[in-house]
Amino acid sequence: MREMDINKAFTLIEPGPVVLITTNDGVKNNIMTISWTMVVDFTPKFAITTGEWNYSYKALKKFKECVIAIPTADQINQIVSIGTTSGKDINKFEKFGLTPVMGGNVNAPLIKECLANIECKVVDFIKKHDIIILEGIAAYYNSSQKNKQTLHAVGDGTFVLDGRKINRKKAMQSKLP
Amino acid sequence: MREMDINKAFTLIEPGPVVLITTNDGVKNNIMTISWTMVVDFTPKFAITTGEWNYSYKALKKFKECVIAIPTADQINQIVSIGTTSGKDINKFEKFGLTPVMGGNVNAPLIKECLANIECKVVDFIKKHDIIILEGIAAYYNSSQKNKQTLHAVGDGTFVLDGRKINRKKAMQSKLP
Repeated sequence: MREMDINKAFTLIEPGPVVLITTNDGVKNNIMTISWTMVVDFTPKFAITTGEWNYSYKALKKFKECVIAIPTADQINQIVSIGTTSGKDINKFEKFGLTPVMGGNVNAPLIKECLANIECKVVDFIKKHDIIILEGIAAYYNSSQKNKQTLHAVGDGTFVLDGRKINRKKAMQSKLP
Repeated sequence: MREMDINKAFTLIEPGPVVLITTNDGVKNNIMTISWTMVVDFTPKFAITTGEWNYSYKALKKFKECVIAIPTADQINQIVSIGTTSGKDINKFEKFGLTPVMGGNVNAPLIKECLANIECKVVDFIKKHDIIILEGIAAYYNSSQKNKQTLHAVGDGTFVLDGRKINRKKAMQSKLP
Protein backbone atom coordinates (compact mmCIF):
# COMPACT_ATOMS: atom_id res chain seq x y z
CA MET A 1 0.00 0.00 0.00
CA ARG A 2 1.75 3.16 -1.25
CA GLU A 3 0.75 6.76 -0.69
CA MET A 4 -0.82 8.25 -3.82
CA ASP A 5 -1.37 11.85 -4.98
CA ILE A 6 -4.20 13.24 -2.82
CA ASN A 7 -5.38 15.28 -5.84
CA LYS A 8 -6.24 12.01 -7.63
CA ALA A 9 -8.20 10.54 -4.69
CA PHE A 10 -11.56 11.83 -6.00
CA THR A 11 -11.22 9.31 -8.87
CA LEU A 12 -11.62 6.51 -6.30
CA ILE A 13 -15.06 7.79 -5.25
CA GLU A 14 -16.45 9.39 -8.45
CA PRO A 15 -17.30 6.01 -10.10
CA GLY A 16 -19.62 5.27 -7.17
CA PRO A 17 -18.21 2.11 -5.56
CA VAL A 18 -19.55 0.74 -2.30
CA VAL A 19 -17.03 1.77 0.40
CA LEU A 20 -16.07 0.80 3.93
CA ILE A 21 -15.68 3.63 6.45
CA THR A 22 -13.52 3.06 9.50
CA THR A 23 -13.62 4.99 12.76
CA ASN A 24 -12.19 4.68 16.27
CA ASP A 25 -14.32 5.75 19.24
CA GLY A 26 -11.38 6.01 21.64
CA VAL A 27 -11.78 2.38 22.73
CA LYS A 28 -12.03 0.30 19.58
CA ASN A 29 -12.01 0.41 15.79
CA ASN A 30 -15.20 0.03 13.80
CA ILE A 31 -16.26 -0.28 10.15
CA MET A 32 -19.48 0.52 8.29
CA THR A 33 -20.51 -0.21 4.71
CA ILE A 34 -21.80 2.81 2.79
CA SER A 35 -22.88 3.36 -0.80
CA TRP A 36 -24.40 6.82 -0.38
CA THR A 37 -21.29 8.88 -1.16
CA MET A 38 -20.47 11.76 -3.54
CA VAL A 39 -17.47 13.83 -4.57
CA VAL A 40 -18.11 17.54 -3.86
CA ASP A 41 -14.69 18.99 -4.70
CA PHE A 42 -11.52 17.90 -6.51
CA THR A 43 -9.30 18.99 -3.58
CA PRO A 44 -10.80 16.41 -2.54
CA LYS A 45 -13.97 16.77 -0.51
CA PHE A 46 -16.63 14.09 -0.19
CA ALA A 47 -20.21 13.94 1.06
CA ILE A 48 -21.59 10.84 2.79
CA THR A 49 -25.07 10.21 4.14
CA THR A 50 -25.15 8.79 7.67
CA GLY A 51 -26.76 9.48 11.04
CA GLU A 52 -27.57 8.22 14.52
CA TRP A 53 -28.84 4.92 13.02
CA ASN A 54 -25.20 3.97 12.34
CA TYR A 55 -23.14 3.07 15.42
CA SER A 56 -20.08 4.69 13.75
CA TYR A 57 -21.83 8.06 13.84
CA LYS A 58 -20.93 8.67 17.52
CA ALA A 59 -17.22 8.21 16.76
CA LEU A 60 -17.51 10.50 13.75
CA LYS A 61 -19.11 13.20 15.90
CA LYS A 62 -16.60 12.82 18.70
CA PHE A 63 -13.31 12.59 16.79
CA LYS A 64 -14.32 14.07 13.42
CA GLU A 65 -11.99 11.68 11.58
CA CYS A 66 -12.40 8.51 9.50
CA VAL A 67 -10.93 6.47 6.67
CA ILE A 68 -12.77 5.66 3.43
CA ALA A 69 -11.56 2.23 2.27
CA ILE A 70 -12.33 0.89 -1.23
CA PRO A 71 -12.97 -2.88 -1.21
CA THR A 72 -12.95 -5.10 -4.30
CA ALA A 73 -15.30 -7.74 -5.73
CA ASP A 74 -13.66 -10.65 -3.91
CA GLN A 75 -14.57 -8.93 -0.61
CA ILE A 76 -18.33 -9.08 -1.29
CA ASN A 77 -19.06 -11.29 1.74
CA GLN A 78 -17.12 -8.99 4.08
CA ILE A 79 -18.90 -5.94 2.62
CA VAL A 80 -22.33 -7.50 3.25
CA SER A 81 -21.40 -8.81 6.73
CA ILE A 82 -20.02 -5.42 7.79
CA GLY A 83 -23.17 -3.74 6.47
CA THR A 84 -25.57 -6.01 8.34
CA THR A 85 -23.92 -6.09 11.78
CA SER A 86 -23.21 -3.43 14.41
CA GLY A 87 -19.93 -2.40 16.01
CA LYS A 88 -21.96 -2.12 19.20
CA ASP A 89 -21.96 -5.93 19.42
CA ILE A 90 -18.72 -7.02 17.77
CA ASN A 91 -15.20 -6.01 16.72
CA LYS A 92 -15.67 -6.10 12.95
CA PHE A 93 -11.93 -6.14 12.13
CA GLU A 94 -11.47 -9.33 14.20
CA LYS A 95 -14.78 -10.93 13.24
CA PHE A 96 -14.31 -10.46 9.48
CA GLY A 97 -10.55 -11.04 9.25
CA LEU A 98 -9.46 -7.54 8.32
CA THR A 99 -6.21 -5.85 9.37
CA PRO A 100 -6.23 -2.29 10.77
CA VAL A 101 -3.13 -0.25 9.87
CA MET A 102 -2.63 3.28 11.14
CA GLY A 103 -1.85 5.75 8.37
CA GLY A 104 -0.80 8.31 10.95
CA ASN A 105 -2.89 11.32 9.95
CA VAL A 106 -6.22 10.48 11.61
CA ASN A 107 -7.60 8.53 14.57
CA ALA A 108 -8.98 5.72 12.37
CA PRO A 109 -7.24 2.80 10.65
CA LEU A 110 -6.70 1.97 7.00
CA ILE A 111 -7.88 -1.52 5.98
CA LYS A 112 -4.83 -3.41 4.75
CA GLU A 113 -6.86 -5.79 2.54
CA CYS A 114 -8.58 -2.98 0.58
CA LEU A 115 -7.54 -1.64 -2.83
CA ALA A 116 -7.31 1.95 -1.59
CA ASN A 117 -7.76 4.03 1.55
CA ILE A 118 -8.37 7.75 2.07
CA GLU A 119 -7.71 9.36 5.48
CA CYS A 120 -10.37 12.03 6.04
CA LYS A 121 -11.27 14.83 8.44
CA VAL A 122 -14.94 15.76 9.00
CA VAL A 123 -15.31 19.40 7.96
CA ASP A 124 -19.08 19.85 8.30
CA PHE A 125 -22.28 18.18 9.52
CA ILE A 126 -25.41 19.04 7.51
CA LYS A 127 -27.79 17.72 10.14
CA LYS A 128 -30.98 18.59 8.24
CA HIS A 129 -30.14 16.07 5.49
CA ASP A 130 -27.92 13.65 7.47
CA ILE A 131 -24.97 14.59 5.25
CA ILE A 132 -21.38 14.77 6.49
CA ILE A 133 -18.70 16.60 4.49
CA LEU A 134 -15.23 15.01 4.58
CA GLU A 135 -11.89 16.37 3.42
CA GLY A 136 -9.40 13.79 2.18
CA ILE A 137 -5.92 14.50 3.55
CA ALA A 138 -3.91 11.42 2.52
CA ALA A 139 -4.59 8.51 0.16
CA TYR A 140 -3.04 5.08 -0.34
CA TYR A 141 -3.30 2.61 -3.21
CA ASN A 142 -2.40 -1.07 -3.33
CA SER A 143 -1.24 -1.47 -6.94
CA SER A 144 0.04 -5.00 -6.27
CA GLN A 145 -3.53 -6.22 -5.62
CA LYS A 146 -4.58 -8.54 -8.47
CA ASN A 147 -8.34 -7.93 -8.42
CA LYS A 148 -9.04 -4.24 -8.94
CA GLN A 149 -12.77 -4.60 -9.74
CA THR A 150 -14.89 -2.52 -7.36
CA LEU A 151 -18.58 -3.15 -6.60
CA HIS A 152 -21.61 -0.90 -7.02
CA ALA A 153 -24.55 -1.49 -4.67
CA VAL A 154 -27.90 -1.31 -6.46
CA GLY A 155 -29.89 -0.99 -3.23
CA ASP A 156 -32.05 -4.09 -3.77
CA GLY A 157 -29.50 -6.58 -2.41
CA THR A 158 -27.65 -6.93 -5.72
CA PHE A 159 -24.22 -5.55 -6.64
CA VAL A 160 -22.75 -4.72 -10.05
CA LEU A 161 -19.05 -5.37 -10.69
CA ASP A 162 -16.85 -3.05 -12.73
CA GLY A 163 -16.82 -4.14 -16.35
CA ARG A 164 -15.06 -2.89 -19.48
CA LYS A 165 -13.33 0.51 -19.49
CA ILE A 166 -13.84 3.21 -22.17
CA ASN A 167 -11.23 5.92 -22.77
CA ARG A 168 -12.46 9.44 -23.61
CA LYS A 169 -9.50 11.35 -22.14
CA LYS A 170 -8.93 13.41 -25.26
CA ALA A 171 -12.55 14.56 -25.59
CA MET A 172 -12.82 15.23 -21.83
CA GLN A 173 -9.56 17.18 -21.55
CA SER A 174 -11.22 20.59 -21.09
CA LYS A 175 -13.16 19.30 -18.06
CA LEU A 176 -10.41 17.49 -16.17
CA PRO A 177 -8.64 19.18 -13.22
CA MET B 1 -41.12 4.28 -21.26
CA ARG B 2 -43.43 3.18 -18.44
CA GLU B 3 -43.91 4.81 -15.06
CA MET B 4 -42.19 2.81 -12.31
CA ASP B 5 -42.63 2.70 -8.53
CA ILE B 6 -41.12 5.95 -7.19
CA ASN B 7 -39.98 4.05 -4.08
CA LYS B 8 -37.62 2.02 -6.28
CA ALA B 9 -36.12 5.07 -8.02
CA PHE B 10 -33.20 5.31 -5.57
CA THR B 11 -31.87 2.03 -7.06
CA LEU B 12 -31.21 3.93 -10.31
CA ILE B 13 -28.82 6.36 -8.56
CA GLU B 14 -27.30 4.25 -5.75
CA PRO B 15 -24.93 2.32 -8.11
CA GLY B 16 -23.35 5.66 -9.07
CA PRO B 17 -23.95 5.96 -12.85
CA VAL B 18 -23.11 9.11 -14.77
CA VAL B 19 -26.44 10.93 -15.32
CA LEU B 20 -27.91 13.61 -17.55
CA ILE B 21 -29.89 16.38 -15.86
CA THR B 22 -32.45 18.29 -17.90
CA THR B 23 -33.88 21.72 -17.12
CA ASN B 24 -35.98 24.36 -18.87
CA ASP B 25 -35.21 28.04 -18.26
CA GLY B 26 -38.58 29.26 -19.54
CA VAL B 27 -37.26 29.62 -23.10
CA LYS B 28 -35.47 26.39 -23.96
CA ASN B 29 -34.55 22.95 -22.68
CA ASN B 30 -31.01 22.16 -21.58
CA ILE B 31 -29.00 19.12 -20.42
CA MET B 32 -25.89 18.72 -18.29
CA THR B 33 -23.76 15.65 -17.57
CA ILE B 34 -23.13 14.98 -13.88
CA SER B 35 -21.43 12.20 -11.97
CA TRP B 36 -21.36 13.84 -8.53
CA THR B 37 -24.68 12.49 -7.23
CA MET B 38 -25.78 10.63 -4.07
CA VAL B 39 -28.94 9.10 -2.64
CA VAL B 40 -29.83 10.75 0.69
CA ASP B 41 -33.20 9.12 1.39
CA PHE B 42 -35.21 6.12 0.13
CA THR B 43 -38.36 8.28 -0.39
CA PRO B 44 -36.37 9.19 -2.68
CA LYS B 45 -34.18 12.22 -2.14
CA PHE B 46 -30.93 12.86 -3.99
CA ALA B 47 -27.98 15.23 -3.58
CA ILE B 48 -26.12 16.62 -6.59
CA THR B 49 -23.11 18.94 -6.68
CA THR B 50 -23.48 21.88 -9.06
CA GLY B 51 -23.17 25.66 -9.06
CA GLU B 52 -22.90 28.84 -11.09
CA TRP B 53 -20.22 27.21 -13.31
CA ASN B 54 -22.99 25.12 -14.91
CA TYR B 55 -25.35 27.04 -17.23
CA SER B 56 -28.22 24.80 -16.02
CA TYR B 57 -27.84 26.20 -12.51
CA LYS B 58 -29.82 29.37 -13.34
CA ALA B 59 -32.81 27.32 -14.50
CA LEU B 60 -32.55 25.13 -11.37
CA LYS B 61 -32.59 28.24 -9.17
CA LYS B 62 -35.48 29.83 -11.05
CA PHE B 63 -37.85 26.90 -11.52
CA LYS B 64 -36.56 24.47 -8.86
CA GLU B 65 -37.36 21.49 -11.07
CA CYS B 66 -35.36 19.06 -13.20
CA VAL B 67 -35.22 15.53 -14.57
CA ILE B 68 -32.43 13.04 -13.83
CA ALA B 69 -32.04 10.82 -16.91
CA ILE B 70 -29.95 7.62 -16.85
CA PRO B 71 -28.07 7.04 -20.12
CA THR B 72 -26.51 3.75 -21.20
CA ALA B 73 -23.10 2.71 -22.55
CA ASP B 74 -24.05 3.18 -26.22
CA GLN B 75 -24.69 6.88 -25.42
CA ILE B 76 -21.07 7.53 -24.36
CA ASN B 77 -20.44 10.07 -27.13
CA GLN B 78 -23.60 12.04 -26.27
CA ILE B 79 -22.67 11.96 -22.56
CA VAL B 80 -19.20 13.40 -23.30
CA SER B 81 -20.50 15.97 -25.82
CA ILE B 82 -23.20 17.18 -23.41
CA GLY B 83 -20.60 17.43 -20.65
CA THR B 84 -18.14 19.47 -22.68
CA THR B 85 -20.51 22.04 -24.27
CA SER B 86 -22.75 24.76 -22.83
CA GLY B 87 -26.49 25.29 -23.25
CA LYS B 88 -25.61 28.98 -23.45
CA ASP B 89 -24.36 28.37 -26.99
CA ILE B 90 -26.46 25.50 -28.34
CA ASN B 91 -29.69 23.53 -28.00
CA LYS B 92 -28.25 20.22 -26.78
CA PHE B 93 -31.37 18.16 -27.53
CA GLU B 94 -31.23 19.22 -31.21
CA LYS B 95 -27.45 19.16 -31.51
CA PHE B 96 -27.04 15.67 -30.04
CA GLY B 97 -30.17 14.02 -31.47
CA LEU B 98 -32.12 13.54 -28.25
CA THR B 99 -35.90 13.73 -27.88
CA PRO B 100 -37.48 15.77 -25.08
CA VAL B 101 -40.75 14.31 -23.73
CA MET B 102 -42.76 16.06 -21.04
CA GLY B 103 -43.57 13.77 -18.13
CA GLY B 104 -46.11 16.30 -16.87
CA ASN B 105 -45.01 16.75 -13.28
CA VAL B 106 -42.16 19.25 -13.68
CA ASN B 107 -41.01 22.01 -16.02
CA ALA B 108 -38.23 19.89 -17.54
CA PRO B 109 -38.31 17.11 -20.14
CA LEU B 110 -37.56 13.41 -19.89
CA ILE B 111 -35.01 12.14 -22.45
CA LYS B 112 -36.78 9.55 -24.59
CA GLU B 113 -33.54 7.74 -25.55
CA CYS B 114 -32.46 7.14 -21.92
CA LEU B 115 -32.97 3.94 -19.91
CA ALA B 116 -34.75 5.75 -17.07
CA ASN B 117 -35.90 9.23 -16.04
CA ILE B 118 -36.77 10.71 -12.64
CA GLU B 119 -38.81 13.93 -12.38
CA CYS B 120 -37.49 15.94 -9.44
CA LYS B 121 -38.28 19.05 -7.38
CA VAL B 122 -35.44 21.01 -5.78
CA VAL B 123 -36.11 20.97 -2.02
CA ASP B 124 -32.95 22.67 -0.74
CA PHE B 125 -29.82 24.55 -1.81
CA ILE B 126 -26.77 24.00 0.43
CA LYS B 127 -24.86 26.96 -0.98
CA LYS B 128 -21.79 26.51 1.24
CA HIS B 129 -20.95 23.19 -0.41
CA ASP B 130 -22.62 23.69 -3.85
CA ILE B 131 -25.01 20.84 -3.05
CA ILE B 132 -28.63 20.75 -4.22
CA ILE B 133 -31.17 18.40 -2.62
CA LEU B 134 -33.77 16.92 -5.00
CA GLU B 135 -36.94 15.00 -4.26
CA GLY B 136 -37.97 12.44 -6.88
CA ILE B 137 -41.71 12.65 -7.58
CA ALA B 138 -42.19 10.34 -10.59
CA ALA B 139 -39.92 7.82 -12.33
CA TYR B 140 -39.99 6.09 -15.72
CA TYR B 141 -38.16 3.02 -17.03
CA ASN B 142 -37.65 1.83 -20.58
CA SER B 143 -37.63 -1.96 -20.11
CA SER B 144 -37.72 -2.54 -23.88
CA GLN B 145 -34.26 -0.99 -24.27
CA LYS B 146 -31.75 -3.70 -25.20
CA ASN B 147 -28.60 -2.21 -23.70
CA LYS B 148 -29.12 -1.67 -19.98
CA GLN B 149 -25.43 -1.18 -19.09
CA THR B 150 -24.85 2.17 -17.38
CA LEU B 151 -21.51 4.01 -17.22
CA HIS B 152 -19.44 5.16 -14.25
CA ALA B 153 -17.21 8.21 -14.75
CA VAL B 154 -13.80 7.77 -13.14
CA GLY B 155 -12.96 11.47 -13.35
CA ASP B 156 -9.80 11.09 -15.43
CA GLY B 157 -11.59 10.91 -18.80
CA THR B 158 -12.27 7.18 -18.58
CA PHE B 159 -15.58 5.43 -17.92
CA VAL B 160 -16.31 1.97 -16.49
CA LEU B 161 -19.24 -0.03 -17.86
CA ASP B 162 -21.51 -2.16 -15.67
CA GLY B 163 -20.21 -5.72 -15.55
CA ARG B 164 -21.39 -8.93 -13.88
CA LYS B 165 -24.13 -8.81 -11.23
CA ILE B 166 -23.90 -10.51 -7.81
CA ASN B 167 -27.04 -11.37 -5.82
CA ARG B 168 -26.93 -10.98 -2.01
CA LYS B 169 -30.64 -10.25 -1.50
CA LYS B 170 -31.08 -12.86 1.22
CA ALA B 171 -28.13 -11.65 3.30
CA MET B 172 -29.09 -8.00 2.82
CA GLN B 173 -32.79 -8.45 3.65
CA SER B 174 -32.58 -6.73 7.07
CA LYS B 175 -31.19 -3.56 5.45
CA LEU B 176 -33.54 -3.17 2.48
CA PRO B 177 -36.48 -0.73 2.64
